[in-house]
Amino acid sequence: MERIKKVIKNITGIDYGIIKLAQERLDNLTKPLGSLGRLEELAKQICGITGRTDLELKNKVIFTLAADHGVTDEGISAYPKEVTAQMVYNFIAGGAGINVLAKHVGARVVVVDLGVASDLKPGPGLCFKKINYGTKNMAKGPAMTREEAVKAIYAGVEIFEEELKRGIDIVGIGEMGIGNTTAASAIAASFTGRSVEEVSGRGAGLNDLGLKKKIEVIKQAIFINQPNPVDALDVLSKVGGFEVAGMVGIILAAASHSVPVVIDGFISGAAALAAFKIEPKVKDYMIAAHNSQEGGHKIILEYIGLRPLLDLNLRLGEGTGGALGIGLADAAIKILTQMATFKSANVSERNI
Amino acid sequence: MERIKKVIKNITGIDYGIIKLAQERLDNLTKPLGSLGRLEELAKQICGITGRTDLELKNKVIFTLAADHGVTDEGISAYPKEVTAQMVYNFIAGGAGINVLAKHVGARVVVVDLGVASDLKPGPGLCFKKINYGTKNMAKGPAMTREEAVKAIYAGVEIFEEELKRGIDIVGIGEMGIGNTTAASAIAASFTGRSVEEVSGRGAGLNDLGLKKKIEVIKQAIFINQPNPVDALDVLSKVGGFEVAGMVGIILAAASHSVPVVIDGFISGAAALAAFKIEPKVKDYMIAAHNSQEGGHKIILEYIGLRPLLDLNLRLGEGTGGALGIGLADAAIKILTQMATFKSANVSERNI
Repeated sequence: MERIKKVIKNITGIDYGIIKLAQERLDNLTKPLGSLGRLEELAKQICGITGRTDLELKNKVIFTLAADHGVTDEGISAYPKEVTAQMVYNFIAGGAGINVLAKHVGARVVVVDLGVASDLKPGPGLCFKKINYGTKNMAKGPAMTREEAVKAIYAGVEIFEEELKRGIDIVGIGEMGIGNTTAASAIAASFTGRSVEEVSGRGAGLNDLGLKKKIEVIKQAIFINQPNPVDALDVLSKVGGFEVAGMVGIILAAASHSVPVVIDGFISGAAALAAFKIEPKVKDYMIAAHNSQEGGHKIILEYIGLRPLLDLNLRLGEGTGGALGIGLADAAIKILTQMATFKSANVSERNI
Repeated sequence: MERIKKVIKNITGIDYGIIKLAQERLDNLTKPLGSLGRLEELAKQICGITGRTDLELKNKVIFTLAADHGVTDEGISAYPKEVTAQMVYNFIAGGAGINVLAKHVGARVVVVDLGVASDLKPGPGLCFKKINYGTKNMAKGPAMTREEAVKAIYAGVEIFEEELKRGIDIVGIGEMGIGNTTAASAIAASFTGRSVEEVSGRGAGLNDLGLKKKIEVIKQAIFINQPNPVDALDVLSKVGGFEVAGMVGIILAAASHSVPVVIDGFISGAAALAAFKIEPKVKDYMIAAHNSQEGGHKIILEYIGLRPLLDLNLRLGEGTGGALGIGLADAAIKILTQMATFKSANVSERNI
């Protein structure tokens, strides 16, 4: 835990002086004041995070963290558990949604095995940080030990810092793990105090009966484990997942290195919530890419105080919505840095 | 008008057989059914428009149409009239918002003088189709003659068809014209029957007093001209603008050539509404990029039955929101055409 505390200590908060400078620059560009709305807000936030107004989001990285969940034994997912490993191979081969959307926005994808239930063959862009072969069934006891949760968070920090050597100007987090909306719902209910029904959805496509069962399993997991909402590590270890804890580590590391971090959907949101509970300052470093179709996601974002950029009914995960968010962030920074000013373009300013 | 009728006759409607094929393809991709939400809807619409599922949105074009408005004599804009011409030069020099965002999504910008009040110097990417030196003051009489409206619509058709020779896979429309939110509000009120207050906003940044005056001027323009809502040409000529009529022509031409057309903000929306009134079939060819901060825009989109993709409080125009919409359309088509299937990637399908 000492190493994580050191990371947290380096999260100093965003630079409001730079945000003011960015505002001045935006107000001199050849457009009516504030007319690029949320793109302008986004540009200012990124300036505040990075401490710069003359930046370029050249190195875009999306971390897609994979892990399995013992709770799938309860039959709470529409897809078989093997799909986690199969999808990792799909990520490496470049055939998944995240590969297509990351390429679309010019981001590189780093796939990490945080806890897939089988031994994976090495492949290009695949990083091994396996904590265990999937979590234990949280409906019967803690998903992992407290030590494993700390290890997974720190694995996230390490992944980020290793990749930082290749350059990271903006980072997106995503995940793959059959059963992980069940964990995310349990995390959301534990931290926010909202009912399990409110924060649970159909995941990859459960029917009514499947959803009912999932809700019962989550309630049982919370009842058996009694996660303590003021102790984020307790919640993460009892009802979390290795990929969720890994994403918490990436968020903390990104904030400590003044790098904006783009949150994807519901499961990334659960990680954002846990990171926010550990260190509230991370809020200003996070960009909520979209509002997922999973109802619990909205509750999480409102709890943290983040407003999503997109509302496209996405519910794929992997970092896909985050990729689109990174594209918007890139556009926002280009507006700030590439547009002409009234003066440079000889355009008259407003007269009333 | 005969030439325009010929264009309209070639709008045959979208291909529902192809949409079914696109749906089948989407359902076989390695992702939970429907989990890419509106991106999947967008991909299907574009397949239906183009009649293909094996497509690439390689040639992206944004037309930014410029014209002046005689109604600026009434003092209804926050910026002086000269800004229209100044911004055209800014477009040509590459310093405006649309240049930055078009480049960001890989689109080329074609700037057209449909009716700027002064003689512009030629420049790269600037196309001349000047109908007149700005419209007349609609608060005192018709903005243009019926013949001029027809001429401006047909100019839009010609611009599109000339550029089509260089290839257009998707097109965005945008505009620049000091005073044109006043025209757009008058068009919106005339067609939808909603009050002038409901469809009028602050444009480029009017204060309360300016907005009050603008509303009075629009009411006067409607009272004096009595535009006939069942005669789109009557509305366009009496309270429209050259750039608005030109965009109507581009929409009709795009639909007639089976090219998806991305609508930008409030003024493009007014053109979309007029095109929809002329030929309701164009609805299926249009993609609403975003929900502008101008309240009248929402009313227009609901009237046509279009749902905007983005909600970023943009109100710049030029085609900027449309550029972001083109980026999403590109992403949607890449998802359809580049993702692996369950079979090709050896991923198990759902078990419940």
